[in-house]
Amino acid sequence: MDTQTLSLVFAPKTVALVGASAKPGSVGNNLMKNLVGSGFIGTIYPINPTSQLIEGIQSVASLSAIGKPVDLAIIAVNAGIVLPVVEEAGKCGVKGLIIISAGFKEAGAEGKQREEDLQALCEQYGMTIIGPNCLGIINPEIGLNASFAPITPKVGSIAFISQSGALGTAVIDFARDLDIGFSKFVSVGNKAVIDEIALLSYFATDEKTKVILMYVEDIHDAAGFVKVARQVTHGPYAKPIIFLKAGRTQAGATASVSHTGALGGNDAYYDAVALQSGAIRVETIQELFSNALMFAHNSTPQGNHVAVITNAGGPGVLMTDMAVVSGLTMASLSETTVATLKEHLPMCANCMNPIDVLGDAKSDRYEVAFNVIAKDEHVDSLLILLTPQAGTEIVETAQKIIALKKSIDKPIGVSFVGGPLVAPGMALLRKENVAVFNYPEDASRALATLTKFSIAKVQDIDESTRTFADIDQKAATELLMKYGQEKKELVPEKHAHEILKAYGFPTLLSATVARRQDLVPLLQHMGIPVAMKIVSPDITHKSDVGGIALNVTVENVESTYDAIMERVSQHAPHAKLEGVLLVEMAPVGGIEMILGVNKQPGFGTMVMVGLGGILVEAFKDVAFGVVPLGHDDVEVMVKRLNVYKILQGVRGQPAMDIDALVACIQRLSRLVIDHPEITELDINPFVLLPQGHGGKVLDARIAVERTS
Amino acid sequence: MDTQTLSLVFAPKTVALVGASAKPGSVGNNLMKNLVGSGFIGTIYPINPTSQLIEGIQSVASLSAIGKPVDLAIIAVNAGIVLPVVEEAGKCGVKGLIIISAGFKEAGAEGKQREEDLQALCEQYGMTIIGPNCLGIINPEIGLNASFAPITPKVGSIAFISQSGALGTAVIDFARDLDIGFSKFVSVGNKAVIDEIALLSYFATDEKTKVILMYVEDIHDAAGFVKVARQVTHGPYAKPIIFLKAGRTQAGATASVSHTGALGGNDAYYDAVALQSGAIRVETIQELFSNALMFAHNSTPQGNHVAVITNAGGPGVLMTDMAVVSGLTMASLSETTVATLKEHLPMCANCMNPIDVLGDAKSDRYEVAFNVIAKDEHVDSLLILLTPQAGTEIVETAQKIIALKKSIDKPIGVSFVGGPLVAPGMALLRKENVAVFNYPEDASRALATLTKFSIAKVQDIDESTRTFADIDQKAATELLMKYGQEKKELVPEKHAHEILKAYGFPTLLSATVARRQDLVPLLQHMGIPVAMKIVSPDITHKSDVGGIALNVTVENVESTYDAIMERVSQHAPHAKLEGVLLVEMAPVGGIEMILGVNKQPGFGTMVMVGLGGILVEAFKDVAFGVVPLGHDDVEVMVKRLNVYKILQGVRGQPAMDIDALVACIQRLSRLVIDHPEITELDINPFVLLPQGHGGKVLDARIAVERTS
Repeated sequence: MDTQTLSLVFAPKTVALVGASAKPGSVGNNLMKNLVGSGFIGTIYPINPTSQLIEGIQSVASLSAIGKPVDLAIIAVNAGIVLPVVEEAGKCGVKGLIIISAGFKEAGAEGKQREEDLQALCEQYGMTIIGPNCLGIINPEIGLNASFAPITPKVGSIAFISQSGALGTAVIDFARDLDIGFSKFVSVGNKAVIDEIALLSYFATDEKTKVILMYVEDIHDAAGFVKVARQVTHGPYAKPIIFLKAGRTQAGATASVSHTGALGGNDAYYDAVALQSGAIRVETIQELFSNALMFAHNSTPQGNHVAVITNAGGPGVLMTDMAVVSGLTMASLSETTVATLKEHLPMCANCMNPIDVLGDAKSDRYEVAFNVIAKDEHVDSLLILLTPQAGTEIVETAQKIIALKKSIDKPIGVSFVGGPLVAPGMALLRKENVAVFNYPEDASRALATLTKFSIAKVQDIDESTRTFADIDQKAATELLMKYGQEKKELVPEKHAHEILKAYGFPTLLSATVARRQDLVPLLQHMGIPVAMKIVSPDITHKSDVGGIALNVTVENVESTYDAIMERVSQHAPHAKLEGVLLVEMAPVGGIEMILGVNKQPGFGTMVMVGLGGILVEAFKDVAFGVVPLGHDDVEVMVKRLNVYKILQGVRGQPAMDIDALVACIQRLSRLVIDHPEITELDINPFVLLPQGHGGKVLDARIAVERTS
Repeated sequence: MDTQTLSLVFAPKTVALVGASAKPGSVGNNLMKNLVGSGFIGTIYPINPTSQLIEGIQSVASLSAIGKPVDLAIIAVNAGIVLPVVEEAGKCGVKGLIIISAGFKEAGAEGKQREEDLQALCEQYGMTIIGPNCLGIINPEIGLNASFAPITPKVGSIAFISQSGALGTAVIDFARDLDIGFSKFVSVGNKAVIDEIALLSYFATDEKTKVILMYVEDIHDAAGFVKVARQVTHGPYAKPIIFLKAGRTQAGATASVSHTGALGGNDAYYDAVALQSGAIRVETIQELFSNALMFAHNSTPQGNHVAVITNAGGPGVLMTDMAVVSGLTMASLSETTVATLKEHLPMCANCMNPIDVLGDAKSDRYEVAFNVIAKDEHVDSLLILLTPQAGTEIVETAQKIIALKKSIDKPIGVSFVGGPLVAPGMALLRKENVAVFNYPEDASRALATLTKFSIAKVQDIDESTRTFADIDQKAATELLMKYGQEKKELVPEKHAHEILKAYGFPTLLSATVARRQDLVPLLQHMGIPVAMKIVSPDITHKSDVGGIALNVTVENVESTYDAIMERVSQHAPHAKLEGVLLVEMAPVGGIEMILGVNKQPGFGTMVMVGLGGILVEAFKDVAFGVVPLGHDDVEVMVKRLNVYKILQGVRGQPAMDIDALVACIQRLSRLVIDHPEITELDINPFVLLPQGHGGKVLDARIAVERTS
């Protein structure tokens, strides 16, 4: 990404609109009206082959006819002539482009070619392009509405990146109701050149942006997103990224494909991306706004202890419920606080948290509670609730809240519960940048999210990937080379185990024996009980022909061999017998886990860990991570599992060897980085044993495919 | 409950207000203003010892001074004089009362006594009482606002029962924004006489009520609630009950107690009550409204196949996502539908479901889609989405939706996504009783809830409880009589097993043997391998002294006995040895389940089933049911478990004996009905074996307490 040319796009001094039109209702006219009518202080050139006055400005025939440097060219012409215009822009030295026109990747093979040619031109001339197939961008601060959205938002601290133009417009319209403003708005369209990752980098250092909102239909590069988003959401200059992903279900994903040509990814993968990157994933448009409001209007809290102040018991309980369910802790008020509240509030008032100032509270009683709570160091954040009761001073209480907000550095979430009665109070609070909500639960949830962010942002993350000295990469490469050369192919089980063994996974010891006289020496060497399995190219179901025996030891190995041979000769008289396979007996006393890999072209490679065995289907207790997995990523994945509690040891059960599990996930990440031809991998079960005993790979499955 | 006197409360011809006041701002004045100023056509008597004009009506000195029959008396006097007033009312023949006054159960011991005296008076005079400590009631249809809520809602089809007066007011105020009306509003206060169960019965047959909303802090009688609510929510005249329960968390529940004296119950129990009763539990005030809107404005669908019509891809996907996540199925449109849509919509439009009429759609294009979809028999319900784009006809499209709604009997959920731009369309839709939402996800969720209700309401429920001929109630009674006479007491394990055995539970066979020579004959009789445990009053930890042996058979029983005796004599030389206990070996190859009972005074008795063993803590895969449990209740409990999938048999694992599990739950329900002194019971693990093999109680714990 190129932050400098993105500055040309967002803060140009000179803008040309190719395809400007005087025809009312046309895109070229809507764009021109927005450019001219939103208070932009730079120079605007409408470009149109026919010389005319467009929205009061004399048009120019072409970009090259301007004869002066142009920072930003907006292109809204038929798809068929976009490329020549872009080339002309390149020749004129225009570096910033917004391509509104549709007819690219989303429009079949011809459009796809056109988009590739566009990318080539962009590369050739060193240009930065937003779009194509987009609504445009808005920078309210300089009065630049370079979009055909029918409204311009007010100035604020929220940057909004939208992969849907329609949703972008709706969001700007919603924002007017909520009285919230934007630092920048971008409709990314097909993301031919500038994608969300480039924009995140740009907004990370954009001083006007405090909060980044995203509407996403797909992410092309999950690892790249995680890397950049993690930088944005952590550290002293951390900014929250709040993202809404469409296509959560198969039905939704199908619609997404049919609409923008975007590949609908697996929902769980996006959850993993969010967790790993520190971005906040929300499920609804409403949550996008709730969080935008909460983050934009508050600094982050020092901890997760909240105080609730209410004038109604029931709604106060609803607010408290949701706060706790969402992860906040009710602050234990200091003795001084409780005593002071008792002194100043009526006898029936509840002076413990949640603090109930009672239904007849006027604004002065709220103020008393505010002043006392503001001083309590046990309180990191406040939730304030008002219901309209007889005598409630709605506007005056709003004023007290505004005064409180100015006097303290703790975040405040407010709910004025009701409709027309509370509307004047809400309008006032919104105007004064207080995060106010109609529904108490929304205030609680958003404050909880803000609090989680504030705690996460200061955590140091160990991103380094672990290296292992014992890995025999060459051995694995040699085995893998045999498969997937032409099409996707399953590696035979034996080789799958050997590949894992080369990467240091604890596989079961095994050996094939062709001659009876080798049995005893081999088993003496192995030193463990084994399972014995017939080896024959003609026998598929070994147990059907009596070709398997368990718990074979040095003592009974020869007699067992004889018995197997006899049974098999009886049941499969014509089969060619090549000997027997001796395999270490599966360990007992462990917990069956599952490890896996899934490579998603155009997204990234995901590693999975979870509870294996028969419970996997009932509980779906699995966690995903995006490769490469750093030290902390793997820790977090394992801790996310419900079964983690059991792995730690519960009710007299021993703790399991979590370190061994973590190491295997790290080895898996390493394996798929070294061998990108691995597209799928399953280890199920991976038996995790008690602490100090490691684990064992029982079954493994590897699929390989080499793509250009 | 007495439906007839409740009619006097909700539809009186004559109303007296005891405590009417001319003093502005007082409760007595607010009440009087509401009575007089809401268009009530009956007679109003303000009662005040001082003769005066109150809101234009001459006051009367007392109820008895009226000298004419009074249907409803509203009492808003100091708590100390409420009882005399109630007695006077009783003597005057007033049957309907609303007691606004506080100072009862919620106000300490004195208030509690006052409430009990009130209940006695009510009983004595055969009165119906709403409250005390309540906001009052409203019946908009007859212009009766017998509350001190500062606003009167419009007439509609929603009955709202609120355990919080403040929330009641807020809800009425919200409703104005949403343009929804009420059939009745009741603030139940302390529920001294009339509780939510009585009100449900009343609203079940109230012709003006289509939807029942409830805000609940506690339910006194879970079984009674389930019984009545189930009648309301099932059958040809089914009405939905949508309820919001405060006190979901411990923090919330604590606040609830401090506020209204209500006991905050366990959240999972309320979930169980909802599931068993058919009531719809929501988690937020907003969901209460979303559902109210959806249910009030639509008939129920015939099935769960929905069609989505949108003018924007991304938001359409969000709507589709939430529809599917919430349980709806995307309808497969008929071939005719798709063909007709293709014929009439532009080429780029998506004619599969979700149907995208594209961003430049005017109202006529929506209309085309409506007309085609309305005829498709594969579609049970519709979701319609509009985003404000250049050229979108907002009001005209709203008009087309209104016309569509009038022409079809399928439910329709609408979302106009945006703020001021879409407001005129939304207002029009609301006025015409279309369920319209700002956020597409809300429309999807509410339609899904409506659909679930429509499917559930037609299901026949087998409520009968199972009887078992093999139960020896007398034996259990005799054992239970020994415990819990004075205080809560744990039944010794041996007796706990015997009680369960008496109720037909499959317990492990066991026998105590004092003499060596009895071992062989007994074991021959038992015919199974056993565990042998030393019996001694002096030995607590049997395994520490070598007092336990496993897998004992006829062959080795005497030698094992000798070995145990020798080991114990060595390790505990002074212990008195009384013999050995032979216990059937625990079976292998089963799944460990948990069964339990928890009696909650002032709520009901809950039975639990779930995944047992060490996983219970990690997965909390348990389901509760309210006793008495009917046949279908038990089935539903078992099917709710995640582990149910595994019990059915997965991946080559055998199916487990689900019938045996169900029978044990039914036996448990019977046990605690027969023996209400059982307050807690745990069977963990209950090993459920493969089909045909039943299960086994391994450990059991029973606590007993007799209360008056």
